[in-house]
Amino acid sequence: MTLTRDDCAALDRADPLATLREQFHLPEGLVYLDGNSLGPLPRTTPARVAEVMTQEWGQGLIGSWNSAGWMTLPQRVGDKIARLVGAGPGELVVADSTSVNLYKVVSAALQLAREAPGAGPARRVIVSERDNFPTDLYIAESLAREHGGRLELLDADDIPARLAAGRGHDVAVLLLTHVNFRTGRIHDMDALTQAAHAAGALTVWDLAHTAGALPLDLSAARADFAVGCGYKYLNGGPGAPAFVWVRPALVNRAWQPLAGWIGHAAPFEFTPGYRPAEGIARYLCGTPPILAVAALECGVDTLLAAELLGGMAALRAKSLALTRLFARLVRERCAGHGLRIVSPDVDALRGSQVSLARDEGAYAIVQALIERGVVGDFRAPDVLRFGFTPLYLRHVDVWDAAEQLRQVLESGQWREPRFHQRQQVT
Amino acid sequence: MTLTRDDCAALDRADPLATLREQFHLPEGLVYLDGNSLGPLPRTTPARVAEVMTQEWGQGLIGSWNSAGWMTLPQRVGDKIARLVGAGPGELVVADSTSVNLYKVVSAALQLAREAPGAGPARRVIVSERDNFPTDLYIAESLAREHGGRLELLDADDIPARLAAGRGHDVAVLLLTHVNFRTGRIHDMDALTQAAHAAGALTVWDLAHTAGALPLDLSAARADFAVGCGYKYLNGGPGAPAFVWVRPALVNRAWQPLAGWIGHAAPFEFTPGYRPAEGIARYLCGTPPILAVAALECGVDTLLAAELLGGMAALRAKSLALTRLFARLVRERCAGHGLRIVSPDVDALRGSQVSLARDEGAYAIVQALIERGVVGDFRAPDVLRFGFTPLYLRHVDVWDAAEQLRQVLESGQWREPRFHQRQQVT
Repeated sequence: MTLTRDDCAALDRADPLATLREQFHLPEGLVYLDGNSLGPLPRTTPARVAEVMTQEWGQGLIGSWNSAGWMTLPQRVGDKIARLVGAGPGELVVADSTSVNLYKVVSAALQLAREAPGAGPARRVIVSERDNFPTDLYIAESLAREHGGRLELLDADDIPARLAAGRGHDVAVLLLTHVNFRTGRIHDMDALTQAAHAAGALTVWDLAHTAGALPLDLSAARADFAVGCGYKYLNGGPGAPAFVWVRPALVNRAWQPLAGWIGHAAPFEFTPGYRPAEGIARYLCGTPPILAVAALECGVDTLLAAELLGGMAALRAKSLALTRLFARLVRERCAGHGLRIVSPDVDALRGSQVSLARDEGAYAIVQALIERGVVGDFRAPDVLRFGFTPLYLRHVDVWDAAEQLRQVLESGQWREPRFHQRQQVT
Repeated sequence: MTLTRDDCAALDRADPLATLREQFHLPEGLVYLDGNSLGPLPRTTPARVAEVMTQEWGQGLIGSWNSAGWMTLPQRVGDKIARLVGAGPGELVVADSTSVNLYKVVSAALQLAREAPGAGPARRVIVSERDNFPTDLYIAESLAREHGGRLELLDADDIPARLAAGRGHDVAVLLLTHVNFRTGRIHDMDALTQAAHAAGALTVWDLAHTAGALPLDLSAARADFAVGCGYKYLNGGPGAPAFVWVRPALVNRAWQPLAGWIGHAAPFEFTPGYRPAEGIARYLCGTPPILAVAALECGVDTLLAAELLGGMAALRAKSLALTRLFARLVRERCAGHGLRIVSPDVDALRGSQVSLARDEGAYAIVQALIERGVVGDFRAPDVLRFGFTPLYLRHVDVWDAAEQLRQVLESGQWREPRFHQRQQVT
């Protein structure tokens, strides 16, 4: 049976999460499939940030560090994010960028792995996926150089064997982005963490494409370290602060090198020797960016609003319905145009995105779609990436996106030269 | 001759910079002497940040990285700050926090000093001032530990001799906050840089209490590295992003360890090996925090608005007039109450603040003043710190502050128990 747009509209009418879309400002007529790169503007954000500016900063001035709760804002918002990723209160803070937080946790993991009982001086290897997001690899490369170690890049499927092999004694850290940014493939956090621990290694998980996209239980998975991004599925705004989590059993056992004053046990004693705060607060560094953390809180609240409707599990069910639908429509309606679906077909392995690849013209096809109001993004060298965020996308949006894709391909419109002019960012 | 409040009002009427005050939202009746901790809200900031939220983010979404110039915003605002500190265009970027930027530059400086011709393995010592701001010392301590070096803390007056001594061969980095946060004393950047270079060391300058407060010429001083704060004299808002500058001759000669994707030569090629961008862009790390950088730009613009009125030189002249006036009024009207003026009496040595000390009650006196609408801050263990920012302070504000201080001291009001209850900040 062929699916019609009316069928999709019927699915939307039956969608118990449909009202969540009203939380966002979304430009009229746009099908926004890039929330995995930059989440849209929550309706509450402008007023909240305006309040922080005019009342808390403008009127309260320096006193707002106490009276408006600025000092503990990274913890307060951290506690909210913790609910989305299966961490406990007080275990997670908002701080810096994903890249900076990666530096903190990979460094701490290297230190702990080296100091573990039975660890030899050879335990300095960071294992990661060849196709991990570049910033993860760059930071790991930098730390491997500083610690006299090595970054070893493998295909995802080869990682378990590498950990299980006799050579496993040299692996200090397994560093993975839980959901691959390009393909949307999900790593098995439980199994890989177990394998890493068996090899004497610690795990660092980048949750950039997980937090707010999939249900997760960091505690149950016995993960060691995690970082995540505030501006994708958490809708915190462009360049929003990131977050960092450390397993409570480990958090006080390592220093992190970005030993700024806000991570000190007593920042306002102004004493010269560094003494890290107890708990996750030691992963703070400089003065928290209040406007940005306040905006992030509004974004996180858009996800917490789903808690009464089934929370992340319900969002995940809808996300899978949307990605399944898009893959089906691409197969049914865009066949014969050289597209390959590179995201996993199996639900349990697929994040909240569907990535396509094409030998030629991937960039131009994305540009032609954007002109038609369907915003995905291009990921070099050949990937068309479409994110499906169940908070605000409808089944008809999926239908419209596939239909525009079909028209771009069938018309050959993407061959027009203007779609081939590269910009810095997609 | 005794100065009266009317004399101060006359000085204000003759002040060619008086109109600059209109750039700020300042609560009615408040004398705000804490702009050296958190600058006040510029009138333009709420509308500009609202525009970034509702138009650039809300309407433009991911496309604003190109169309709204987000990708180059850290450079654009950096170029504006460069004009305030004597750096050239393209030499300075906005990024991360002061603490994180300190980590980048001290690390790069250690690396360069060690690799310099004639440098031995012993050249690993970081020299700093004992009373430097703690985050500078914590970051230096952390890097000294990682690099197998040592942080050596001296009294300010002992630094030149330490650099000149035969032991100078072991000093890799001289790390100083140009204007001491507690006393407001200015280090002689030219002389100390020369002495450091003669000793084979590189200089790192923290401009937290310099940028927007004093004229400065980083290029002429032949400084090597500098970082600075966005939320003090630059009025960028609570926890505003910081900035980082490297002498052009050095910038491509070292990597900095926070090798995030935005500092890569080609971030959107998504290639696995790290290749730093040319120039100061390699000191970027994660995705720039757009709302916060936009707010910072409004703050920086309040200083650039003085350029037609004489710029930093004119602001400095007024700042000195204000601090001289406050010191005089404290001497004349608050004598006999155990206050000591700890900021230098000599203009050329004094930043844009006057710090007082008292053996007992410094915290409580600051609290009593805040209740009376005169906002300074307490700096442990015994300092009452008052910042005088010529952009928005009037001579009558100085007079009123000194008068309230006199009343608090003469009445003994500060002895009331409520003024002794410690809060986390200020």
